Amino acid sequence: MTTPTLTLREVSDLVGGRLVGDATATIRGIAPVDEAGPHELGLLAARRYVQFVDGSRAAAFLVSAALEGQAGTGHDLVVVEDARQALIPLLERLHPPEPTQPHIHPTAVVGEGVRLGRDVTLGPYCVVEDGAEVGEGCRIGAHAVIGSRCRLGEHCTIHPHVVLYPETVLGDRVVVHAGTCLGVDGFGYAFVDGAHRKVPQVGRCVLEDDVEIGANTTIDRGSIGDTVVGSGSKLDNLIQLGHNVRVGPLTVMAAMVGVAGSTRIGRGVLFGGQAGVIGHLDIGDGARVAAAARVMRDVPAGEIVAGDPARPNREYLRWRARLDRLPRLAERVKALEQAVDDLAGRS
Amino acid sequence: MTTPTLTLREVSDLVGGRLVGDATATIRGIAPVDEAGPHELGLLAARRYVQFVDGSRAAAFLVSAALEGQAGTGHDLVVVEDARQALIPLLERLHPPEPTQPHIHPTAVVGEGVRLGRDVTLGPYCVVEDGAEVGEGCRIGAHAVIGSRCRLGEHCTIHPHVVLYPETVLGDRVVVHAGTCLGVDGFGYAFVDGAHRKVPQVGRCVLEDDVEIGANTTIDRGSIGDTVVGSGSKLDNLIQLGHNVRVGPLTVMAAMVGVAGSTRIGRGVLFGGQAGVIGHLDIGDGARVAAAARVMRDVPAGEIVAGDPARPNREYLRWRARLDRLPRLAERVKALEQAVDDLAGRS
Amino acid sequence: MTTPTLTLREVSDLVGGRLVGDATATIRGIAPVDEAGPHELGLLAARRYVQFVDGSRAAAFLVSAALEGQAGTGHDLVVVEDARQALIPLLERLHPPEPTQPHIHPTAVVGEGVRLGRDVTLGPYCVVEDGAEVGEGCRIGAHAVIGSRCRLGEHCTIHPHVVLYPETVLGDRVVVHAGTCLGVDGFGYAFVDGAHRKVPQVGRCVLEDDVEIGANTTIDRGSIGDTVVGSGSKLDNLIQLGHNVRVGPLTVMAAMVGVAGSTRIGRGVLFGGQAGVIGHLDIGDGARVAAAARVMRDVPAGEIVAGDPARPNREYLRWRARLDRLPRLAERVKALEQAVDDLAGRS
Repeated sequence: MTTPTLTLREVSDLVGGRLVGDATATIRGIAPVDEAGPHELGLLAARRYVQFVDGSRAAAFLVSAALEGQAGTGHDLVVVEDARQALIPLLERLHPPEPTQPHIHPTAVVGEGVRLGRDVTLGPYCVVEDGAEVGEGCRIGAHAVIGSRCRLGEHCTIHPHVVLYPETVLGDRVVVHAGTCLGVDGFGYAFVDGAHRKVPQVGRCVLEDDVEIGANTTIDRGSIGDTVVGSGSKLDNLIQLGHNVRVGPLTVMAAMVGVAGSTRIGRGVLFGGQAGVIGHLDIGDGARVAAAARVMRDVPAGEIVAGDPARPNREYLRWRARLDRLPRLAERVKALEQAVDDLAGRS
Repeated sequence: MTTPTLTLREVSDLVGGRLVGDATATIRGIAPVDEAGPHELGLLAARRYVQFVDGSRAAAFLVSAALEGQAGTGHDLVVVEDARQALIPLLERLHPPEPTQPHIHPTAVVGEGVRLGRDVTLGPYCVVEDGAEVGEGCRIGAHAVIGSRCRLGEHCTIHPHVVLYPETVLGDRVVVHAGTCLGVDGFGYAFVDGAHRKVPQVGRCVLEDDVEIGANTTIDRGSIGDTVVGSGSKLDNLIQLGHNVRVGPLTVMAAMVGVAGSTRIGRGVLFGGQAGVIGHLDIGDGARVAAAARVMRDVPAGEIVAGDPARPNREYLRWRARLDRLPRLAERVKALEQAVDDLAGRS
Repeated sequence: MTTPTLTLREVSDLVGGRLVGDATATIRGIAPVDEAGPHELGLLAARRYVQFVDGSRAAAFLVSAALEGQAGTGHDLVVVEDARQALIPLLERLHPPEPTQPHIHPTAVVGEGVRLGRDVTLGPYCVVEDGAEVGEGCRIGAHAVIGSRCRLGEHCTIHPHVVLYPETVLGDRVVVHAGTCLGVDGFGYAFVDGAHRKVPQVGRCVLEDDVEIGANTTIDRGSIGDTVVGSGSKLDNLIQLGHNVRVGPLTVMAAMVGVAGSTRIGRGVLFGGQAGVIGHLDIGDGARVAAAARVMRDVPAGEIVAGDPARPNREYLRWRARLDRLPRLAERVKALEQAVDDLAGRS
């Protein structure tokens, strides 16, 4: 694949930016400011990278307006409000998706009563079990298993080695990355007569439109009732959602987050990596959960929580500051003891 | 698949419950009380869900005796000691397992010297390597890899995309969910001559009877000697057991637990999600490890531990309470300083 | 497979040890001192296992010099400086790798323009996509997917069910365990017009020579620029590296470590299990990060950090000791209040 060459004028037009310098200079790619080579545009989107401006070999910089003053002199610039956001049209132009022809690989195994929409691609060795429906334009990667009676909307991308347990439901334009398992039996047992007896897991796993799920993530099916991820939500790699978790739309979870069964998460909630939430809680709309926070109580809408156990962020910061002042407190107690001794001796 | 319709009388007989109301009313499914539709039995097993009783559209409630008084009026009820436990016979009746005929899919690859018991099912594209033994009635899912010389007992269920490394041993009725890897090389290196040199990993991974393992979990083989999970133990998704870990029978681990090498865990131990245990420890029978606890020392039998580092739960709760009283302590010190100043001025 | 029988003389010669006892005694395997049977050498490499010496059924002991005095009497011994390190030649002799003939399984799917080196093995159902290069002597396991334009050096071992996304680059002698996904799309979105819009992920995932990666681990490709793991580094199971993370050579990460995007990690850094690092940090050469530590700031070269948030280990230990002394501090404040009351009454 060859990537196109763009002039800075073209770059500037693409991203709606302001051009400072030579409009005819050309770039063939884009890279972080400290890694960019002489034919690449250097991305300068965060203050932390200003230190690399001087030594940069970049052909020019794509810079956020707030950092323009720190982009040095003598460099050609394309200045935009938000350089990270400007990456989207630019990268889409430099790296257009490979054109692919829909095709059913001869090794794909398609069960009885399967309905395939138009222009579906089935990769090598993928398996679509009995009664599944795969909507128009879906691309199913190598070795993926679409369980019996699953329903996929249109234009979903299922990467290699994904496993959808039976009855899993995907909306339109859902993307699932490699190795992820959806609709796994929830973890439900009752201790009866000296053994952990399994509670049948008969609900479904439902992902609404425009959900994207990372690699090697696991989402359980509902025990009774469904596990649901709302439209437009994005989950990273190695995440675990227990049975009957309900995630609202536009929520974002970084890698390694774990959410125990039956917890309900609102709209537009943000989770930092490795955060954990116990079961049966409510996390309100627009809440933010810091990385590695351990959520043990409901979180009201809009609240930011951090720590173990998680508490409102302000409270968490005060708590940490208080711990950091402990040595000073101990010194003050020591001084008091001395003063009281002195007073006792004197009186 | 059609699910059967049951009268409340039939439900009540199935679960050994007490019927309150119309014995001839019918249900076709069961759902949490807040999700149940007009043809479903609403499950009321936890106080948290009492708030949804009034608005519920459920045909009737399956309710734990302790909550009967809060099940509102005018609803038909089936009252049992433990509504969650009553789910088991009910769901087994409403969702009987699909009848399947044992079969060897023509694409299954079976190596030399493999011994297959009667009524074994091998799914599409599964691979059984040389010298493996698969007991009567086992069902091996699509793409699963049973490594060379593995031994599986009877009636195991191996879901799609499971990988058993060579020599892995499974007892009877073991269930392994999708994407899980068993018998992986342990993480053992010695730093010799400027490089991390691998210590050959030659032990085995052994799961005893009735073990169930969730999805995308990893269990290492022993370095020398075996890694063992005892009979009837249940492990959730995305768990990691290091080499030579030994887990007793009937132990339960929620998702994302990590146990480092050579730790021994007793019988009937419970782990909350995301807990971690360092290597070479002993966790006694019946101990309980709270979610996200970091176990750095041996845990005696029956102890409940929590926190980072983990300590006995009572001690942990006192520790947290003490931290919460820090601001009050700081105020008391301030008041003392004032009082001592006053006294010093007076005397 | 039969394992060879060795005399203690042969064992001693192999490991460069000192023989105490009967040079003609024979062993057929090696096991931890508490598990070894009468034909096995018992490993005694850690003080914790001295308690098992008396009851051991081992034929003889392989013992670290520092523990020789505690190996009891009447046992034959092979004494070495470091018994764990001595395992390497011994296990390599007792468990030689199975001889395998390079072969391309007839079910392997090889795309257009693929270049395969000499003596490559492709397992059943593996897929090598268009334009990939696989170097001499590589062994690709069952169902592995080598994405388009990937480049693998020589003598790599790719275990079953590994997925390499397109353009992933591996050096020589790289080992990747089952279920691991390399070069996954990084987690990059910009919130535009009420939706999380995906930032195209166009960088690569690059593993240098002699890297070993555990099972079900995920490493993202670079967003722009590459994600890199340096030569000789070893990563365990269920690890997550975000986009544009750069790991130096000879670094070791235990299981379940998570590193967020763009963090740079030096040479020879050690990570305990379940540790987490936020994005855009620098972790210096030779640093050590304790298990479950939460790294929120840069770590200088050689520093040992622990805790949440992570701080230098000494500071962490002082901090914990201070917390443990809190009850004593509270008592001292109470005593002061009493004393001040007494003084106030007296004066």
